[in-house]
Amino acid sequence: MKLSNWRRLLTPAAFLLAAGLACGTAFAQMGSDAEELHNSANADLWPSMGQNFQLDRHSALRQITPANVKHLEMIWSQSTGALRGHEGQPIVTDVGGKPMMFFVSAWPNIVQALDLSDPDHPVEVWNYLKKTDRDLSAVPRACCDTVNRGLNYADGKVLFNTLDGYLIALDARTGAVDWQVKHAYPDAGETVTNAPLIAHDKVIVGFGGDEFGARGRVEAYDLATGKLVWKYWDNGTDEDIGLTSETNKANPQYGTAGHNIGMLYPGDEWKRGGGAAWAWYSYDPQLHLVYYGSGNPGLWSPAYRCGANPPTQEACNDGKWDNKYSMSIFARDVDTGKVAWVYQMTPFDQWDYDGVNEPILVNMKIDGRERKTLVHFDRNGFVYVLDRTNGTLLEAHKYVTVNWAEKIDMKTDRPVKVYEHSPLLVNQMAQACPSAMGGKDQQPASVDPSNPQVFFVPTNNWCMQDTPQTRTSLQQGVVYVFANVYMYEEVPGVSGRIKAFNVVTGKTVWNIPDKYPNWGGTLNTAGGVVFYGSLGGDFRAVDSKTGHILWSRKLGSGIIGNPITYSIGGHQYVSIMAGIGGWIGLPVTAGLDLNDKYGAIGATAMAKATHLNEIPQGGEVYTFRLQD
Amino acid sequence: MKLSNWRRLLTPAAFLLAAGLACGTAFAQMGSDAEELHNSANADLWPSMGQNFQLDRHSALRQITPANVKHLEMIWSQSTGALRGHEGQPIVTDVGGKPMMFFVSAWPNIVQALDLSDPDHPVEVWNYLKKTDRDLSAVPRACCDTVNRGLNYADGKVLFNTLDGYLIALDARTGAVDWQVKHAYPDAGETVTNAPLIAHDKVIVGFGGDEFGARGRVEAYDLATGKLVWKYWDNGTDEDIGLTSETNKANPQYGTAGHNIGMLYPGDEWKRGGGAAWAWYSYDPQLHLVYYGSGNPGLWSPAYRCGANPPTQEACNDGKWDNKYSMSIFARDVDTGKVAWVYQMTPFDQWDYDGVNEPILVNMKIDGRERKTLVHFDRNGFVYVLDRTNGTLLEAHKYVTVNWAEKIDMKTDRPVKVYEHSPLLVNQMAQACPSAMGGKDQQPASVDPSNPQVFFVPTNNWCMQDTPQTRTSLQQGVVYVFANVYMYEEVPGVSGRIKAFNVVTGKTVWNIPDKYPNWGGTLNTAGGVVFYGSLGGDFRAVDSKTGHILWSRKLGSGIIGNPITYSIGGHQYVSIMAGIGGWIGLPVTAGLDLNDKYGAIGATAMAKATHLNEIPQGGEVYTFRLQD
Repeated sequence: MKLSNWRRLLTPAAFLLAAGLACGTAFAQMGSDAEELHNSANADLWPSMGQNFQLDRHSALRQITPANVKHLEMIWSQSTGALRGHEGQPIVTDVGGKPMMFFVSAWPNIVQALDLSDPDHPVEVWNYLKKTDRDLSAVPRACCDTVNRGLNYADGKVLFNTLDGYLIALDARTGAVDWQVKHAYPDAGETVTNAPLIAHDKVIVGFGGDEFGARGRVEAYDLATGKLVWKYWDNGTDEDIGLTSETNKANPQYGTAGHNIGMLYPGDEWKRGGGAAWAWYSYDPQLHLVYYGSGNPGLWSPAYRCGANPPTQEACNDGKWDNKYSMSIFARDVDTGKVAWVYQMTPFDQWDYDGVNEPILVNMKIDGRERKTLVHFDRNGFVYVLDRTNGTLLEAHKYVTVNWAEKIDMKTDRPVKVYEHSPLLVNQMAQACPSAMGGKDQQPASVDPSNPQVFFVPTNNWCMQDTPQTRTSLQQGVVYVFANVYMYEEVPGVSGRIKAFNVVTGKTVWNIPDKYPNWGGTLNTAGGVVFYGSLGGDFRAVDSKTGHILWSRKLGSGIIGNPITYSIGGHQYVSIMAGIGGWIGLPVTAGLDLNDKYGAIGATAMAKATHLNEIPQGGEVYTFRLQD
Repeated sequence: MKLSNWRRLLTPAAFLLAAGLACGTAFAQMGSDAEELHNSANADLWPSMGQNFQLDRHSALRQITPANVKHLEMIWSQSTGALRGHEGQPIVTDVGGKPMMFFVSAWPNIVQALDLSDPDHPVEVWNYLKKTDRDLSAVPRACCDTVNRGLNYADGKVLFNTLDGYLIALDARTGAVDWQVKHAYPDAGETVTNAPLIAHDKVIVGFGGDEFGARGRVEAYDLATGKLVWKYWDNGTDEDIGLTSETNKANPQYGTAGHNIGMLYPGDEWKRGGGAAWAWYSYDPQLHLVYYGSGNPGLWSPAYRCGANPPTQEACNDGKWDNKYSMSIFARDVDTGKVAWVYQMTPFDQWDYDGVNEPILVNMKIDGRERKTLVHFDRNGFVYVLDRTNGTLLEAHKYVTVNWAEKIDMKTDRPVKVYEHSPLLVNQMAQACPSAMGGKDQQPASVDPSNPQVFFVPTNNWCMQDTPQTRTSLQQGVVYVFANVYMYEEVPGVSGRIKAFNVVTGKTVWNIPDKYPNWGGTLNTAGGVVFYGSLGGDFRAVDSKTGHILWSRKLGSGIIGNPITYSIGGHQYVSIMAGIGGWIGLPVTAGLDLNDKYGAIGATAMAKATHLNEIPQGGEVYTFRLQD
């Protein structure tokens, strides 16, 4: 189609936007928040990782419906140029009046820019691969495969992270490097797989590495120049973390400044204290707050993170050894980085239940009162509904089988642990559900903000036997786990379920069992369709009301990416990345021996049980629309 | 679909076949020729690389027609698990009553077996990757990318070659290794990219390596046991080559035994004399003859292959320094390997016009007489029609722009060279069309045997400036070229053309220009459709009568593979591999500097001119059928 047609399709506001961008400076004056709000209000676009700051992964497009989705057809495909896990998604936005798609591959992190002026036949305008000063040591230090969860766009720049620690701003028109900074260091265990968040003219980044002795840190860089604006750790002293006298004012039981509460580890263990924020970040421009979750507190042999003598379950769980603020949702001021509030889901983690899963911002009525909430499906198997203005816990429900805790005590806001299912001492095995990979891992849920209690959630349905081991090293940058973990399906033959789950009632509305783990995210549309990909390679469309699978296509590799949708020239398009990998797929992508019971910290046994070795590696974007 | 439905679709003969295979021994008794003839007579299958021994790449299926082809839809895709060039094609055959697809990826040569019982949703039954005793030195020694041109099937075995020189027979049901032999040696410059031919219970293999000082050799192994049956070189003594008193009896001017004509090189240059048969093999079971073409005679600095002093054009081209039998079509007895006839297309090669392109067997009337012919579109820009019973040259026409020769003299059967366009002396540049990559390279043409004069031919349309260089080494296994080659488009903006070409009249019936080189093969069907893929990634369907493009889909990577078609459950399917590479794509897959004028012996300049750097790497099988 011609550019004129593309423009004809845009709303008047979007047309102004396009015109503004063509002038080149409109948003530089307006600021990145205005630009993103403008773009995400235009359902024709998918301008950022989750379509919008709130990460609801909802589209107002309604051309594709349960009635016609069976006529979906693949209209084009584009290889990412790389193999291994593809956990991200493309973005589609307007650059100088042209509809453009951008995406980044798994390592070595190739960025491609496609001109969608003819939306049925994209043309690559440029691609970018950083060729100098690469740190190949990042590859074996990526605990959970060499994935990348995407890029974002603002002010004419495409922003992305490389596994080995670079944040790079590219000119969206040419692919030329505008600026770049090195912000993570593989030799300290730090590797980067997340998409940078662009918020209030800043680019906010973290990294992973809790299994390599890293210490979690989040930084903000100036969008225009790449200069560091603020930098805080997720553990350590109050100053390191950015705790202030205002922090957790509404909920002092979450912890307050003045006690260096972020050093609740024995000795200097906080220096290898994990809590890395390696997944998804959301943002509320009205509240001026950035939200993200922190990872596990370093090594998996819990007794080493408990200063009690002897390290009993009771003593380690009395609040003195919470390993704060690992496993926590942080709300930081976007401009200063200071902590507004921080809530720890899993104090003194004994299972590797990273708290990094996506914090989705949605407003809903609870107990008759309209609340600005943050909804978070945690690895630990509970879904948390928090008041995002102050962190107050409103709801907490099990969304998968959970046996490590009875419940979240709504008076203390802490889990009531079941010690029988809580690994602690070296060489003493404990069984627990969910497994370390969580009731859900990084694969993002989605929600329709007009029906804000019901989330479309990819879940994992397996358990583990976890035997802590003796710590034999204190070095950053080498494997820092010390646990033998065996994972197995909760019900043989069913390892994943897509659920429609009500986060207020705690009830499952419908669910779709899958023989393969569900490691890809969901997309929901106003047309009434939920899209998701299976690790077996099936890309599916589901009736969002009933959970009936309406359409499916077998794509080239296992899907761990997240669907997006956009509209050009009168057609609604749906795109998805395929490429098996991630922690669950690492045994395939790294060619591990599937008979190693404990390989990849539990992944090999699950890969064997679910026959992931029968899924080829790949790296591909597929795009669909209704047949003419 | 259910197996019963698949069987319902088979012809009675094919049903017997399926039943026979289910019993397990039918074809072991009948022999591999009977099996292949049986299978290739069943248009529902694509049982070998070219559908049949004659490599006509024609299918009798007629469900897809020019009228309905616009309703073609991608119904599934499967990654090969590898990047770099994919020059091959899958096969589809019946294994124990089940419709199965097999294919092999580019290096590291992963084989996949897909059960097509539900033809819209294949299930991988097994995959195979050789993990031990690999020779990684094969990768930099693969002159023209780490491609693989496919596998074949007989007697319950899947046969394929690895780049580093193994011929492997796998149990088609389980993927277990039945037998394997090492037949090519990278340290002697030998690397393997071709599909093995299965003929008369033997597996016939060659290799490439003329640019690394290899000496061409073809071997036959026993299908049942993997034991060597015969082995011959393409140059050297009469005995080495397998010349006998019967060789070339009808055309003694081609050369006869008794003179060690295969040593027409100066000194021991024949020991690095190239002539490697690295591409396609065909077979006539009635004549008992295997056909293949040999490659270029080693180094590209021609004067070193001429013993005349001084090495003038006239002296080097007087027949004494033909470098026989490089650049030749061989017809060997399938059981003994002895040469029935051998015809040299390009005596004393001065351009790298390898003679390896596919020898297609088809019968046609010429000058009123029905002939069993072999049709061969040579790199040198001429198409040759030979009587395949005895090698007699019947027709020779230019099918692209050719300036290195006026014509083929039909009295001498030799080209009339134009010395101005014939590089010879060191540091003396000569311009020539076509380029070293030929008017066509390995990408196979196809023909409908019911219209046997008109071939659907992928052509290259570029030229070169070739400056021979001083020879600085005599070592096998290292680059043995010694020429600076710059390539450029004949007409800027058009570097490929698919042509319908009449090999008797020498006329182009229609042609489709493409901005990208055409490096993928064609398929033609009784439905009247020609399929082919573009290096730009467009997979196209064309009206075979008019050359009008009727349908196109943009796939994930550049296409250098060859389409196939098959039928299951009442649907005709079309499959194609995508994955940019080959000689033309090597600058992309090996990450070469496109500003190196002479890089990859001319490929970098062409890659730059045609913007191949905008095509991502990939490795994927896509399958299409008409919409329901």
